[in-house]
Amino acid sequence: MGKTKRVMLPVTEVDLTVIKYNASQIEAPHITGLALKLFVMLVELPLIGSLILSYLKKQNKINEMLRDTVIPEPPMFRPEFLPQEPESGVVFLKEDEKSEDRVEIATRCLPQYDSANNLGSDSTPFRYWKIRDYAYSYRSKITTPSMVAEHVICAIEESSNTKPATLMLISFDPEDVRKQASASTQRFEEGKPLSILDGIFVAIKDDIDCYPYPSNGGTTWLHEVHSVKKDAVSVSRLRRCGAILVGKANMHELGMGTTGVNPNYGSARNPHDLKRYTGGSSSGPAAIVASGICSAALGTDGGGSIRVPSSLCGVIGLKTTYGRTDIKGSLCDGATVTVIGPIASNVEDIILIYAAILGSSRDDKISLHPSTPCLPDLSLHENTSVVGGLRLGKYTEWFNDVFSPDISNKCEDALNLFSETYACKVVEIVIPELDEMQTAHVVSYGSEAAASLMPDLQDGKGKKLTLDSRVNFALFNTFTSSDYVAAQRLRRRIMYYHTELFKNVDVIVTPTTGMTAPLIPESALKSGESNLNVTANLMRFSLAANLLGFPAISVPVGYDKQGLPIGLQIIGGPWCEASILRMAAAFEGLRMETKQPASYFDILKKV
Amino acid sequence: MGKTKRVMLPVTEVDLTVIKYNASQIEAPHITGLALKLFVMLVELPLIGSLILSYLKKQNKINEMLRDTVIPEPPMFRPEFLPQEPESGVVFLKEDEKSEDRVEIATRCLPQYDSANNLGSDSTPFRYWKIRDYAYSYRSKITTPSMVAEHVICAIEESSNTKPATLMLISFDPEDVRKQASASTQRFEEGKPLSILDGIFVAIKDDIDCYPYPSNGGTTWLHEVHSVKKDAVSVSRLRRCGAILVGKANMHELGMGTTGVNPNYGSARNPHDLKRYTGGSSSGPAAIVASGICSAALGTDGGGSIRVPSSLCGVIGLKTTYGRTDIKGSLCDGATVTVIGPIASNVEDIILIYAAILGSSRDDKISLHPSTPCLPDLSLHENTSVVGGLRLGKYTEWFNDVFSPDISNKCEDALNLFSETYACKVVEIVIPELDEMQTAHVVSYGSEAAASLMPDLQDGKGKKLTLDSRVNFALFNTFTSSDYVAAQRLRRRIMYYHTELFKNVDVIVTPTTGMTAPLIPESALKSGESNLNVTANLMRFSLAANLLGFPAISVPVGYDKQGLPIGLQIIGGPWCEASILRMAAAFEGLRMETKQPASYFDILKKV
Repeated sequence: MGKTKRVMLPVTEVDLTVIKYNASQIEAPHITGLALKLFVMLVELPLIGSLILSYLKKQNKINEMLRDTVIPEPPMFRPEFLPQEPESGVVFLKEDEKSEDRVEIATRCLPQYDSANNLGSDSTPFRYWKIRDYAYSYRSKITTPSMVAEHVICAIEESSNTKPATLMLISFDPEDVRKQASASTQRFEEGKPLSILDGIFVAIKDDIDCYPYPSNGGTTWLHEVHSVKKDAVSVSRLRRCGAILVGKANMHELGMGTTGVNPNYGSARNPHDLKRYTGGSSSGPAAIVASGICSAALGTDGGGSIRVPSSLCGVIGLKTTYGRTDIKGSLCDGATVTVIGPIASNVEDIILIYAAILGSSRDDKISLHPSTPCLPDLSLHENTSVVGGLRLGKYTEWFNDVFSPDISNKCEDALNLFSETYACKVVEIVIPELDEMQTAHVVSYGSEAAASLMPDLQDGKGKKLTLDSRVNFALFNTFTSSDYVAAQRLRRRIMYYHTELFKNVDVIVTPTTGMTAPLIPESALKSGESNLNVTANLMRFSLAANLLGFPAISVPVGYDKQGLPIGLQIIGGPWCEASILRMAAAFEGLRMETKQPASYFDILKKV
Repeated sequence: MGKTKRVMLPVTEVDLTVIKYNASQIEAPHITGLALKLFVMLVELPLIGSLILSYLKKQNKINEMLRDTVIPEPPMFRPEFLPQEPESGVVFLKEDEKSEDRVEIATRCLPQYDSANNLGSDSTPFRYWKIRDYAYSYRSKITTPSMVAEHVICAIEESSNTKPATLMLISFDPEDVRKQASASTQRFEEGKPLSILDGIFVAIKDDIDCYPYPSNGGTTWLHEVHSVKKDAVSVSRLRRCGAILVGKANMHELGMGTTGVNPNYGSARNPHDLKRYTGGSSSGPAAIVASGICSAALGTDGGGSIRVPSSLCGVIGLKTTYGRTDIKGSLCDGATVTVIGPIASNVEDIILIYAAILGSSRDDKISLHPSTPCLPDLSLHENTSVVGGLRLGKYTEWFNDVFSPDISNKCEDALNLFSETYACKVVEIVIPELDEMQTAHVVSYGSEAAASLMPDLQDGKGKKLTLDSRVNFALFNTFTSSDYVAAQRLRRRIMYYHTELFKNVDVIVTPTTGMTAPLIPESALKSGESNLNVTANLMRFSLAANLLGFPAISVPVGYDKQGLPIGLQIIGGPWCEASILRMAAAFEGLRMETKQPASYFDILKKV
């Protein structure tokens, strides 16, 4: 009655022509409310709990993949990249340069600025104010950071007082915002703004340190064990550029979910439909940008947490290459799948924020082989020709494995338009072992999160977590150390497949998510929910960039029949932020539909 | 009743002046025979087993270090080294060169060869034949590889037939040896030996593939699940140099012990006293070299497994830098603490074998920053002056934490003589967190071993393991994935301390082991034993080189009152094999006492 041992072929011998796509079926119950409470009680019981979790893991073949399978490759404990050739048609930045100098270079990479285009008449279709619109308005004394600050404060307060309330910020101190804005205003009066980001309003996800706010990671108690004495590295870079940090943005508790529900503080809601989720875990960052209150926000992305809410809220989210931005001062420090990146309403703002925050001081950077960071030069007419001829990898069966065909259709339309316009080629690809990728990811992510929080979850603090976090931790605690090592062997295989793929394609394109913004069940608001089917649909296309460290960006390409935003994901090779930013800009230029979010605060007109 | 959370200071803020040495106390019972069988039954029971293991882990503070402690550093999943300056006074080798060409360069690094010195009269004190003695004898037709082969075969057979028998080889095919020897003899007849290693007899530890032998790793069943189709990379390099591979050397089962006991096949015995252990896990390799039967052997070292038996048997063992030799084709492929390295009776033979086998084709090599491999140029008189002025780091309290003061005294005497002769300076150092190093090591080693063997231990094969392996696996299976990650955080701390140390010292010197060869309890021969006190004494000084990947060498420096060999360990900075080989040669030159092992086969005189 022994178990069957499976022996994987060495990765170099796998025949890609016989790979079949498995439409993924997560086997887990959808539970909320009282049922969820009961379920948590059960999984936390010593014996019954492990039986339940064993059953769930068996359904999802987790142990089968990790314990019963000979995986011939040695483990890859974090993304390892071969040294790269620099990208072409780019402007190089220096990691160790002052962030304001990098932002200055980035500004020169942007197309000619025309204020008429932007601050324009009411006849222009809906568009968000860009960072350069604010900068222009400050310089030409149309407004001041202090004036805008009042509108921002008012919009934030209004958003959390309307019904249903959308809680975009967990920690927010209007006086601190006013102080920063006043200093910025003074700099403009003296004609000495620190950079183009001076006076720009930015929100910081609650798992990234931003002094003097606590970092709760969306919990109610983390500040008791984690004290914030200074800004995280990326936040301090924004601050020295003059950015005004409005507070700590809402998030799915500890980043462990993709809906963005937060029963501790109240949930952020999707500006396109307040009955729906923002997506997560960077729920607040995406919501506050999509609502037009902040130009940008910093999020963290360990399993789609920047890209998923950006997609669901109709804005742009950039997951940077592992090691490209500095994770120090965030709660994810030490994770091998998580990075910090920007969310903004348009590509040029993403570029400016990215330029400000990039550069890693990681202790382990020595073995990362980072290539010099660079930006696409969008100031030149030739940008189009650089995009031209790109090979876009598309795994059609995967691409089409979405909850609603609206998503794959819109993404495909955008792709076709793009290919025609820029003479690009869509190349059909196959990616094997997507289920193994999911297992390797959940084990890596979960184990690293558990290791970080383990000492703090003693003392009964575990019981203060939301119910779905407790289910997650109960699951993570069943992973053994040899599961972890086996997952890293899978990581090397999956990296191999992708490295081979990137020899034939320049980027991989997918929908960002397998579903648009889901409705929020009433019961979930109070006690959260566990719905792995929704999770699977939201995360389906996210994991390669996390497990393998690739950069990826989500760009809006349209709306489904219910008017909910749809995002397209562009995954680049390692360190190729410039390439995917250039493509994102080109997609943005082609965009046919733009729609003002139902809950949009035009902070410059309001009040 | 909450547990106490401990928060470690960031490693850069630790005050080394207040570090206190904890003479380490492993808390675990010493059990053999029936008691061990009973103990195994108990620890393998679902509930009682985990209670027993919890108790043992608690005594040794394993969970306290990993689960109740905030470790601020990000994980370091395997040794990471800063790029290094090349060593001085060295001859460079190329990794991708043919091994016979590297061996040729290595030969030119050796002192002038004088056959009279070596094959000399009976009046010279005891010494082993060196590789160059064989090479000289073959070239001058004093003997042939085939003639020596008969003596080798005879000695191997004799050693396993005497009472008590010492089983040096697990797999051994005299016909295969004769065939290789005859081919070698013919090459000499044609005046075309492949290299100076042509006709040199080498044993391969049973966990390294050597075609056509099975690789059992000391178990009785591993060949059923692991088929050997070709030589391991390092073995094929020796073979192409003309080395004669005599078979698969005995070892502690799966390398999981340092005594070298092997109840499956019979244990190798210490040539200096057949009632005693060889040390392990490379028991056969050390015994066969110390017995004078083979010039060299390849071992693996994941926790002292090359150095410990070399020290106990009075020979020399080199643990290479992580990534310097190729682990492919060994059962340890995928481990982050284990490497392949040579055992020989003298430094120049170590150099020749090392030159033959070095070079890594690891998939993960790209992020290792290896410096170019090189050798000390011992052919020059200036060698002495290059050794001169070295700074030898010594942590005296640790150095003196040995079972018998004979060990620390002899090591200190050797060190003093060395320092005086070469005008070197012994620098007192402090290494914090040695207990944490032990925990980080056992978790890394155990988890990686468990991950490799997990699929093969299904189907009841686990019950075919020896009792002490079963206790080990029962322990390893209690490690969670977050324990593994926490252990890697400790690894980064401990690397930091050592990197800082190596700014002030050139090498770290310790005794190789905390005790000389222990007696073999009669009951252990049949069913093994679990004696963590012996283990701790044997492994006390080994772990830094494994956890942090540094090269280290054990050189004999004398004997204890019972006439048992004592080894001194020299630990070098990353990639500094040349430096420690040079020092080892200098130590060898100063050695006062040499003693023929009681069970020594002078294969050229015998038969």
